[in-house]
Amino acid sequence: MPIDNPFYTPEMQGPYELHSLGRFELEDGGVIPDLQLAVATRGTLNADKSNAILIPTWFSGTHQTWDQVYIGPGRALDPEKYFIVVVNQIGNGLSTSPHNAADASIAMSRFPDVRIADDVRAQEQLLREVFGIERLALVVGGSMGAQQTWEWAVRFPDKVLRAAPIAGTAQNTPHDFLFTQTLLDAITSDPGFAGGDYASNLDVQAGLGRHADIWAVMGLSTEFWKSGFWKNIPMLNGETTEEFETFQAGFIRALFQLMDPNALLGVGWKWQRGDVARNTGGDLAAALGRITAKTFVMPIDHDMFFPVADCAAEQQLTPGSELRVLPSIAGHFGLFGFNPDYLAAVDANLAELLATPV
Amino acid sequence: MPIDNPFYTPEMQGPYELHSLGRFELEDGGVIPDLQLAVATRGTLNADKSNAILIPTWFSGTHQTWDQVYIGPGRALDPEKYFIVVVNQIGNGLSTSPHNAADASIAMSRFPDVRIADDVRAQEQLLREVFGIERLALVVGGSMGAQQTWEWAVRFPDKVLRAAPIAGTAQNTPHDFLFTQTLLDAITSDPGFAGGDYASNLDVQAGLGRHADIWAVMGLSTEFWKSGFWKNIPMLNGETTEEFETFQAGFIRALFQLMDPNALLGVGWKWQRGDVARNTGGDLAAALGRITAKTFVMPIDHDMFFPVADCAAEQQLTPGSELRVLPSIAGHFGLFGFNPDYLAAVDANLAELLATPV
Repeated sequence: MPIDNPFYTPEMQGPYELHSLGRFELEDGGVIPDLQLAVATRGTLNADKSNAILIPTWFSGTHQTWDQVYIGPGRALDPEKYFIVVVNQIGNGLSTSPHNAADASIAMSRFPDVRIADDVRAQEQLLREVFGIERLALVVGGSMGAQQTWEWAVRFPDKVLRAAPIAGTAQNTPHDFLFTQTLLDAITSDPGFAGGDYASNLDVQAGLGRHADIWAVMGLSTEFWKSGFWKNIPMLNGETTEEFETFQAGFIRALFQLMDPNALLGVGWKWQRGDVARNTGGDLAAALGRITAKTFVMPIDHDMFFPVADCAAEQQLTPGSELRVLPSIAGHFGLFGFNPDYLAAVDANLAELLATPV
Repeated sequence: MPIDNPFYTPEMQGPYELHSLGRFELEDGGVIPDLQLAVATRGTLNADKSNAILIPTWFSGTHQTWDQVYIGPGRALDPEKYFIVVVNQIGNGLSTSPHNAADASIAMSRFPDVRIADDVRAQEQLLREVFGIERLALVVGGSMGAQQTWEWAVRFPDKVLRAAPIAGTAQNTPHDFLFTQTLLDAITSDPGFAGGDYASNLDVQAGLGRHADIWAVMGLSTEFWKSGFWKNIPMLNGETTEEFETFQAGFIRALFQLMDPNALLGVGWKWQRGDVARNTGGDLAAALGRITAKTFVMPIDHDMFFPVADCAAEQQLTPGSELRVLPSIAGHFGLFGFNPDYLAAVDANLAELLATPV
């Protein structure tokens, strides 16, 4: 029986529609009997279907941040010009996921392993079958959304005209794998996790809290904490604080403790194994060499686990691409748009990319 | 009754002597009834006692790494020229510590809180009472040894002629505090920890393992893992490996799992609160302004938690100091001397510092 978790509802995340893709076979051999993707669209598809933009989501995220922070009239992602499709990744808590699966064969600890490429194949099917979209003006995503963006550009080069992977790599690194593992182990080591068959995410509050604590170290930056930048960021209760430990508890811990442990674990497993070179027998240069999209590679300057150097190395292997480093003292969590200069840089780059003839 | 842990023996750590300082009152109100410091010396004190060098130790470390990696004939730390005193910090497993305390009132979970300044006061007493040393040609230490080096230079400016804090700050940052907390919580969340009154460190292997896993992320660097640098580093069994997860298990996990949980926790508590501004009512500039030692501030370029920027900011506040950035792809763990260019840079800087008239 699905677990009732109010975090994964339209009331908390904003409206979305569920689209069924039917039976969906996964790369690693598992099957989702009826894959439902949670999708939010903005704007209108034009007659020749040339104005579609796809946005896949990141770890622990949903369509909501994109809707609130990145999309809007006058912005680069302008719903008055583009038809913008934000697709929640498989297992994220809104699309078919361990805690909401109607089919008992994939519920909770029985949820099958899902890879980045499974999401990309599902999104391609969704766009084609539901919206009749065969070609994308742009794929843009942050973090795991960047992993999916890279996979799109490599797997479906004819369908992606432009690509903008923000703060994420095409091939995951050992360091990033080890980091992600500490996040996952913080959850599974909680006795309340019960091997994935807990009765409520409230049983796993200690593990979710330690998970959040590691995020506070790797997701942000030493300057974020030292500068007191966070003093102006409201916590979940709407208040601000002068104490960094209070902010950590009231924002990062409080946020992750709302989430479903199995959702984080399954998506984390997927994150660890992101690798476009699976398309080319392990040859990263060959995989990136397939890309025909005009690509802006956009790491964040203070990112501690998708660092600029790793993203720049992949950009060098991508034909016709450009490196556009984004500024944020908030490190990887700069993705949340805490600082206006970051958002201005994203908009300027995406506007330039969208204006580039391809 | 003290726990028998073979890791904390001369057979494992190399020879040392225990010096008793008697009853030792701590800053935070606790008392160690008979404080024993584990001390290793190299070289000979000269007649006017002007050739003494003090080296305090880092988190989880002992005198051994200094002896094996940094000290030797022809090196900057040359025992043929200097009398070198390496003092194991209080609670590190060799000096009086939770697991080896003879006095039941401070054994295991009852061990009192110890601060960086307590170590520095104890070291000053040791040098004066045992060796008759009133002035140091150099204090040099890495990481928590750097914290103690800073405290020495601020607290006893007349006694420190030269100072070289490597990869450590004078005032700990919020980011570093949060990082350290994840290390400590990985241990205390293990049910085997039993509130600090476990029967053996073997009861806490899972927690020590997760502690080590976080070190693998923050202690090293993305380039260390990506480059395969570790393929040439022998694991504890003497073998090398091509698999990064095998290296992580066979080196970092295996090493930390030998250690005593309470030793790591007590020393970690101390690390989190390192702050020379406690000498000056919270005024960091005033504290660093006291320093009269010729000081080389030496962060490591890839260090993820004592980053160059934090060390450079303190160097700017230190009269007559210089910033000397050390190169190591191994990040903070560059301290172990994995790469020859790091060791060459340390030696060149220390030799120059020791040759500087003061």
